[in-house]
Amino acid sequence: MSSRCRITSPLQAIQGFCFLFFWFDHSFELITTGLPSSHSSHYLLYEEWASYSLFYKYQPIGLIRKYFGEKVGLYFAWLGVYTQMLIPASIVGVIVFLYGCATVDSNIPSMEICDERNNISMCPLCDRPCGYWSLVTACGTARASHLFDNSATVFFSIFMALWATMFMEHWKRRQMRLNYIWGLTGFEEEEDHPRAEYEFHVLQKKLKNENSSKVSLCPLRPLVVACSVQILLTVAIVLGVVLYRISITTALQLSSASAFRSNIRATVKTTAAIINLIAIIIMDEIYGVVAHWLTVKEVPKTDKSFEERLIFKTFVLKFANAFTPIVYLAFFRAGNPSVTLYLAAWPFLCCPTMQCAHAGCLMELCIQLCITMLGKQLIQNNLFEIGIPKLKKLIRRLKSKQNSKQEEEFQKTLACHQKDYFLNPYVGLNPEYMEMIIQYGMVTLFVASFPLAPLFALLNNIIEIRLDAKKFVTESRRPVAARAKDIGIWYNLLRGLSKVAVIVNAFVIAFTSDFIPRLVYQYMYSPDGTLHGFVNHSLSYFNVSDFQNNTDPPQPVGYRVEICRYKDYRDPPWSDTPYELSREFWNILAGRLAFVIIFQNVVMLMTDFLDWLIPDIPKDISLQIHKEKNLVVELFMKEEQGKRLQRKRQSTESLVQSRHAQASDC
Amino acid sequence: MSSRCRITSPLQAIQGFCFLFFWFDHSFELITTGLPSSHSSHYLLYEEWASYSLFYKYQPIGLIRKYFGEKVGLYFAWLGVYTQMLIPASIVGVIVFLYGCATVDSNIPSMEICDERNNISMCPLCDRPCGYWSLVTACGTARASHLFDNSATVFFSIFMALWATMFMEHWKRRQMRLNYIWGLTGFEEEEDHPRAEYEFHVLQKKLKNENSSKVSLCPLRPLVVACSVQILLTVAIVLGVVLYRISITTALQLSSASAFRSNIRATVKTTAAIINLIAIIIMDEIYGVVAHWLTVKEVPKTDKSFEERLIFKTFVLKFANAFTPIVYLAFFRAGNPSVTLYLAAWPFLCCPTMQCAHAGCLMELCIQLCITMLGKQLIQNNLFEIGIPKLKKLIRRLKSKQNSKQEEEFQKTLACHQKDYFLNPYVGLNPEYMEMIIQYGMVTLFVASFPLAPLFALLNNIIEIRLDAKKFVTESRRPVAARAKDIGIWYNLLRGLSKVAVIVNAFVIAFTSDFIPRLVYQYMYSPDGTLHGFVNHSLSYFNVSDFQNNTDPPQPVGYRVEICRYKDYRDPPWSDTPYELSREFWNILAGRLAFVIIFQNVVMLMTDFLDWLIPDIPKDISLQIHKEKNLVVELFMKEEQGKRLQRKRQSTESLVQSRHAQASDC
Repeated sequence: MSSRCRITSPLQAIQGFCFLFFWFDHSFELITTGLPSSHSSHYLLYEEWASYSLFYKYQPIGLIRKYFGEKVGLYFAWLGVYTQMLIPASIVGVIVFLYGCATVDSNIPSMEICDERNNISMCPLCDRPCGYWSLVTACGTARASHLFDNSATVFFSIFMALWATMFMEHWKRRQMRLNYIWGLTGFEEEEDHPRAEYEFHVLQKKLKNENSSKVSLCPLRPLVVACSVQILLTVAIVLGVVLYRISITTALQLSSASAFRSNIRATVKTTAAIINLIAIIIMDEIYGVVAHWLTVKEVPKTDKSFEERLIFKTFVLKFANAFTPIVYLAFFRAGNPSVTLYLAAWPFLCCPTMQCAHAGCLMELCIQLCITMLGKQLIQNNLFEIGIPKLKKLIRRLKSKQNSKQEEEFQKTLACHQKDYFLNPYVGLNPEYMEMIIQYGMVTLFVASFPLAPLFALLNNIIEIRLDAKKFVTESRRPVAARAKDIGIWYNLLRGLSKVAVIVNAFVIAFTSDFIPRLVYQYMYSPDGTLHGFVNHSLSYFNVSDFQNNTDPPQPVGYRVEICRYKDYRDPPWSDTPYELSREFWNILAGRLAFVIIFQNVVMLMTDFLDWLIPDIPKDISLQIHKEKNLVVELFMKEEQGKRLQRKRQSTESLVQSRHAQASDC
Repeated sequence: MSSRCRITSPLQAIQGFCFLFFWFDHSFELITTGLPSSHSSHYLLYEEWASYSLFYKYQPIGLIRKYFGEKVGLYFAWLGVYTQMLIPASIVGVIVFLYGCATVDSNIPSMEICDERNNISMCPLCDRPCGYWSLVTACGTARASHLFDNSATVFFSIFMALWATMFMEHWKRRQMRLNYIWGLTGFEEEEDHPRAEYEFHVLQKKLKNENSSKVSLCPLRPLVVACSVQILLTVAIVLGVVLYRISITTALQLSSASAFRSNIRATVKTTAAIINLIAIIIMDEIYGVVAHWLTVKEVPKTDKSFEERLIFKTFVLKFANAFTPIVYLAFFRAGNPSVTLYLAAWPFLCCPTMQCAHAGCLMELCIQLCITMLGKQLIQNNLFEIGIPKLKKLIRRLKSKQNSKQEEEFQKTLACHQKDYFLNPYVGLNPEYMEMIIQYGMVTLFVASFPLAPLFALLNNIIEIRLDAKKFVTESRRPVAARAKDIGIWYNLLRGLSKVAVIVNAFVIAFTSDFIPRLVYQYMYSPDGTLHGFVNHSLSYFNVSDFQNNTDPPQPVGYRVEICRYKDYRDPPWSDTPYELSREFWNILAGRLAFVIIFQNVVMLMTDFLDWLIPDIPKDISLQIHKEKNLVVELFMKEEQGKRLQRKRQSTESLVQSRHAQASDC
């Protein structure tokens, strides 16, 4: 413990020197990027990067970094790696989808549903207005849902979990390589200074409670308030959307003419998804403002922590906004519809939106995902990223036109950099990253229900890269170049998403798809080991006479329904315990839960193994760094030797000189 | 990409300089630790550290590091942190145990078992020789098992998972602090050179297949062979132990006199545990040799990789050796005994060792753990760590006595360091670490079944520290001091164990203890919301007439048994599906699996949060490092300024001098 006092050991002196050096190196870099030569870089970027026709080419990352600085360079490098990694994922996704298409005719459950000989009368899906329906009418949905709900889906989920790990590893390696090429291997971020707002806040606090010494505890309070406000807001919005949706669809249901009835399901699905989409897009903007307001209220200490907190809040809010409808669809509606729907009649629980069609929950989830993803990307890309900036520019130009002609002529005399001032201000990379991370969430979280998600993401990103490039090169002012070694908090968010994706996919496969019930039926109940009879096995019996007063639906014309069927595992009316959850229900539930445990742990083990297998630093880079170290040591040794020799020569020379002088004196 | 060529940028020059400096610093450190002053350190260590009476004192880590080097210093620091962290764990463990003791009289299930009025005839636990037995005889076991299987156990498992994370975090901080104090913050390990054996091996390979160029693929083959040999060996040993155990106990069962019969269970338990213990200890030594042999066969490239591979192999083999009996007991025997035991009669499946007493599986697991842990520690500590070295010393002395008396007198003239050569050679830290990590496994992996494990570990470690200290100071030669920044691969093994512990504990609570069945009964089946009637609910009915020919047990004297009970959830003989797994079975299985999912994810979330919450570098150390950096930068600037000034003065002086000389020349 005695050795603790030596503060300025030679070792630390060297470290200090390194640190100092980086500072110089950094400033130097910043100066060189601002040289007139960058004007030609600007033109080069415009020619070689910011054009849709170049979509098949690699991006000139070196040039981007030279003109915009490391931070922007890393964003485009990351976007490039992500887009590149999406290619194999979309190929496998398309193969999985095609496998579904190819096997749709040999799929036994959908064949059984479509078989007109199995004349199965299904119980009504809602309380009064709906009637009995024949299972054959669900034929189309059953066939379509097989496209997304087949055994290849499980394989694809595992593949995508490993893909996410590969992506993170690939990016780490690419980042390391860029760090090396850009000379950032030893760069350490400088200490941040406190923000003026924070210092003012602390000062105010100090003045207020001069006698109490609990100043340090205060910054916690806004955080707690912010968190609780967040939670309340999110829950309120989600409930609002759900209730809105339910009431709309119920109203539609009640007011519709009987001829219109068959189209109700399609109408409900589409309108609900579109309403959701619009709500998501509007709320997204509001949440952005809310997150900013909350972060300002919190008064973080430094600019860096301000940015990190803002990003985290925006992420949580926007993510909850984008995914709650999907989560609700995947897990709450997909839960087995209870028989209490018929026995007790709580109006909200028994309306048609609360139940999926037979084998159709994954299908609906897929539609929702598809509409959300495509709609969000198209609208946000076109409207917000192209339309609004163009509109702003137009307004600005109109305003300037309204002024005198003198000014217009004055503008013609302006230099290029003066004209550039009239462009939109640079708003930072956060909105770009946020958009991409929400998309990454769509690609990884619910990939089990929508294998085409990577393809859609790929198509979007190919456009997105050039769109962002155009925006950076022509639409907005040139940002102040900033150094960065990594993509910061975004990396952690990506990592967290990849982890959550494993468990979400496990639950989607186990609870939303029919994968486990089919497996359990095949190995435990099937008489011949095939899926023949699965549809019959998955339907429970309901005695029509058990309907409560005034809730029994109108009988169909021509025949009388005594027993109707519904999709659940419950005891039949003639057993000792009618309408209780049956042995099969618990059996399948145990199977679902066991699948979640096995899937989660196997995938976690595999990703950990992959993580360990792939070194974070590419072999050639680490070799190169090592070689350079050795070279530098050699050089240093030589120089020291040279210095010593020179010093010796100098001292002998001066000795000779002084003797000479003495001699001449004599 | 064009900037890649600059190999010797000033930045890298600095890095090289740092690297060089460390090398010097390192060598210097090694020289200073070898100075004569260390003799007094030796005595000081003997006085102040290597004595059992000092068990309550902190270890003099600085002194240990000074005398033995960083590697040994880190081991003892780690052992100290581990022992210190065991104190809160053992306190909580004792409280949990005491809670069990206090509530044993108010525990409804054991009260019901002990109630003589519930005259329940249980089915025999084995095929022919066993008879019907009354549930009341299991009263003692039921009461004892409550001590370890109560609701506090779940709390304790969660606590221990968080404890493990806290321990890892605490150690990281302590290590960082030691690194700072010992001046290792910038120390990087040097490149290892290839081992002579490896170079010889590569040369041989090259000579053999001079024309084929696949030399690089060859090192993989021994690895595969080694892995497969390992797996085969482990499985073989485990099966052997299980079969041995079964046959022994069956033999005991068949040959025993009827008076001896009541003691069979206790005899079987104790002998099995002791046989296991002896097998474990013997196999441990064999596995050590096997691991070494396998690693030599593999021909790793460098000494470091040799050591890491050896450690990993030894760990896997010894760990499997120590834990397979426990895992077997926890999960395979504790699985619900199947009714097929009575219907079909595979001799090994229906022998008594395959079934636990009522509510007694956790109890047996606890006994096994207790005996393994205590026995292993006592025998290994006393016999291997104290006895054998003493014996070796004695043999050596006897050998030297056999030689002539001349030699004895020659020995008296020897210097101290010459005498020290007769001590045992230093065998490295690996056996010490291995012992501790197996103990850590016992403490964390099965803590749900044995809350006193941390206490036993604590008591052992308090002795272990001083025992190891004595061994290092007086029994073995002084090791060559080695630098190390961390405890290397052991940290990763500890981390891995902590992760595995979460899932193992989840499974122990869900499947070995009766926690979930009790919970499910209480909330789903109990008429009054209490545990009254749980014992009856957990027992299934068996009709005696369903026994196969010649397998029905002898009827008890005095009354005739028509229906006997057994512990399982199966349909009664009078149902439509006699002896099938009942709805309750699947219900409880779903509950168990749901518990595993919830427990695993909640604990993982909590540990991740804790990991993120606690910074890896202590605040004061990071501040100190930052301050020093700034100071050094200032110092450096001043020095540079001073140099420049001096150079200026020198140049003016020489100018003056030369003018002077010129003047005198004139």
